[in-house]
Amino acid sequence: MIYFDNGATSFPKPNSVYDETMRAMKEYGANPGRSGHKLALKLSRGIFETRTLLSKLFNTKNPMNIIFTFNATESLNLGIKGILKPGDHVITTSMEHNSVLRPIKHLEGFGVESTIVYGDSKGIVDVSQIEEAIKPNTKLIVTTHVSNLTGTIMPIKEIGQVAKKNQIYYLVDGAQSAGIYNIDVEEMNIDLLAFPGHKGLLGPQGTGGLYIKDNLSIESIFQGGTGSASSSLIQPDICPDKYESGTSNGPGIIGLGAGIKYIMEKGIENIRSHEEELTKHFIEEAIQIEGVKLYGPLDIKKQGAVVSLNIRDIDSSEISYILDEEYDIAVRPGLHCAPLAHETIGTLDQGVIRFSFGIFNTHEEIEYAIKALREIVKEI
Amino acid sequence: MIYFDNGATSFPKPNSVYDETMRAMKEYGANPGRSGHKLALKLSRGIFETRTLLSKLFNTKNPMNIIFTFNATESLNLGIKGILKPGDHVITTSMEHNSVLRPIKHLEGFGVESTIVYGDSKGIVDVSQIEEAIKPNTKLIVTTHVSNLTGTIMPIKEIGQVAKKNQIYYLVDGAQSAGIYNIDVEEMNIDLLAFPGHKGLLGPQGTGGLYIKDNLSIESIFQGGTGSASSSLIQPDICPDKYESGTSNGPGIIGLGAGIKYIMEKGIENIRSHEEELTKHFIEEAIQIEGVKLYGPLDIKKQGAVVSLNIRDIDSSEISYILDEEYDIAVRPGLHCAPLAHETIGTLDQGVIRFSFGIFNTHEEIEYAIKALREIVKEI
Repeated sequence: MIYFDNGATSFPKPNSVYDETMRAMKEYGANPGRSGHKLALKLSRGIFETRTLLSKLFNTKNPMNIIFTFNATESLNLGIKGILKPGDHVITTSMEHNSVLRPIKHLEGFGVESTIVYGDSKGIVDVSQIEEAIKPNTKLIVTTHVSNLTGTIMPIKEIGQVAKKNQIYYLVDGAQSAGIYNIDVEEMNIDLLAFPGHKGLLGPQGTGGLYIKDNLSIESIFQGGTGSASSSLIQPDICPDKYESGTSNGPGIIGLGAGIKYIMEKGIENIRSHEEELTKHFIEEAIQIEGVKLYGPLDIKKQGAVVSLNIRDIDSSEISYILDEEYDIAVRPGLHCAPLAHETIGTLDQGVIRFSFGIFNTHEEIEYAIKALREIVKEI
Repeated sequence: MIYFDNGATSFPKPNSVYDETMRAMKEYGANPGRSGHKLALKLSRGIFETRTLLSKLFNTKNPMNIIFTFNATESLNLGIKGILKPGDHVITTSMEHNSVLRPIKHLEGFGVESTIVYGDSKGIVDVSQIEEAIKPNTKLIVTTHVSNLTGTIMPIKEIGQVAKKNQIYYLVDGAQSAGIYNIDVEEMNIDLLAFPGHKGLLGPQGTGGLYIKDNLSIESIFQGGTGSASSSLIQPDICPDKYESGTSNGPGIIGLGAGIKYIMEKGIENIRSHEEELTKHFIEEAIQIEGVKLYGPLDIKKQGAVVSLNIRDIDSSEISYILDEEYDIAVRPGLHCAPLAHETIGTLDQGVIRFSFGIFNTHEEIEYAIKALREIVKEI
């Protein structure tokens, strides 16, 4: 199987991720932060190490600003619902995933207003349009870093400047970028950064996180046992405990730590270069195939390792099925949980076939996929 | 290390849990329910199998009534917040974990009323007191099945009858019982059952679930990508999608399935008998040691595999530290995230040393722990 579905989850993982996850499960799979015995303490220390690695990766001084969650969807819900109150206004873009749009639509039922700034046909969003959408009650701007549909890289640094200038919080969805693109929360004026553990960061599923800026206390979504201030019926107001109720995914977080170490050893620039090279080559070859329609910027400095395409007007699911059955190539067809992004690029009916590349994909695999597309175009 | 902290998380797990979790990670760690390719479908099928196993275990006909969550704390928050609205009244008990009490206290800030029925000094709750607490606006009763402090088994079937008679929803916290005690949601009139995957069900951390009765639609906590109805900005109103946004812990759920299969092969009655035998022996021996104070019913038909004790008035953390350092025995001291339960049995200052036994503990380990307690009592 050639796996081009890294936008959904990265696969495979580095061997160290498998090994360290399993070692934690087998050797010290206790409950961290609950008991004081050796096994629990060992797991707690490991979790703190992953927190520290993430804080280095995103350039935040305090590891306690990194909250562990179940997945990026929880992180985004926490960021959005933790900030917005009835009467507040939020600005987002048409290029967002449903993990951003659905919570915002949900909040509209509770008196939150929203403005959706549309991208152009390549998914590119104009920062000045975001600035123009600001109202006196605007409390939050939410944008993705890299579109999961077109790969379009958003100008997050510029948006961060607009947010800072207008004293508005900025929440970035790093679902497609964390572990591949540099994200410096200080330099980019990011107040909240949601990220999955199991995509670019190469960790196991069941891991994710949210960076919350120092001294920014938002509403928690869950309350429960935190292993701290246990005599109180009130959720403790300290970070990360306030947002981490119940048993965390200890071994998963250890595995995530191994994934981040792998990235740091390889060098994030080298990983990005590799993915850029694959993406560039794929675009250059695919664009020459008659009958193939490509979406997105198609410029490697403006696009992550996500390339969406269609063959003529054929349903995206049909082509994906052929790629899977005949060529053993895994891609993702359909709407990618991003309906407004599809509306933006005009593919709401047809869907697209999404190729999303990862660290372990090779030049040969790209060649093979191009060959497959050439054959399908002829035969269908 | 002798591990007597199974109330926090079961350790170790059956080998099949390690093996199946790892096999899913390495061989088909795709994103279930998102793409249509072979790897994603294989993981989707495995997740459905675990859903089916859980529905058999809890005797619900429809596997789609089982929702997967991050942990039992999320399940309890979802059950409590999904049901209660401003003006509603909820009844719970003093024996609850903070994962029940803290969400309820949080909701009090939004106009929800609560009544807490206190247990007696052994943690036993009188069903008639629950019935007496019912008011016209009572919408929900929440109780644990087995106390995480005293092991007290709650009369959930009788409480279920009271709830049904009065048309009130009943949410059971199965954190200490699922996988060890029979839970029949039909026979017991349970509307919602919260359970962790990583305790008695022997699955990996990062897994949990909530059973929601047929035709009972509650508010979701998260909204996001569900891989279904993707063209809509509104969360789909179908079960389980409504409550399962974002990437689930696929390999964890596969591992959980292996844990449940292990339980079904061993026989839940045999597992319970084994834990009862260990608990009975431990109580019979510990009760004879002068200076040891035991809490809870101390009757194996009224108590799960959790035994809490103190040595004279010495701080529970001190004794636990000695058990860990000198004897390599892992227990949990302190307040166990259950402050009102400690208040109920009078141990809020001292805490208790909690021994919680599991399927892999042995008679010899109990003997060794008793020997350790005898020595500590003499030396300290």
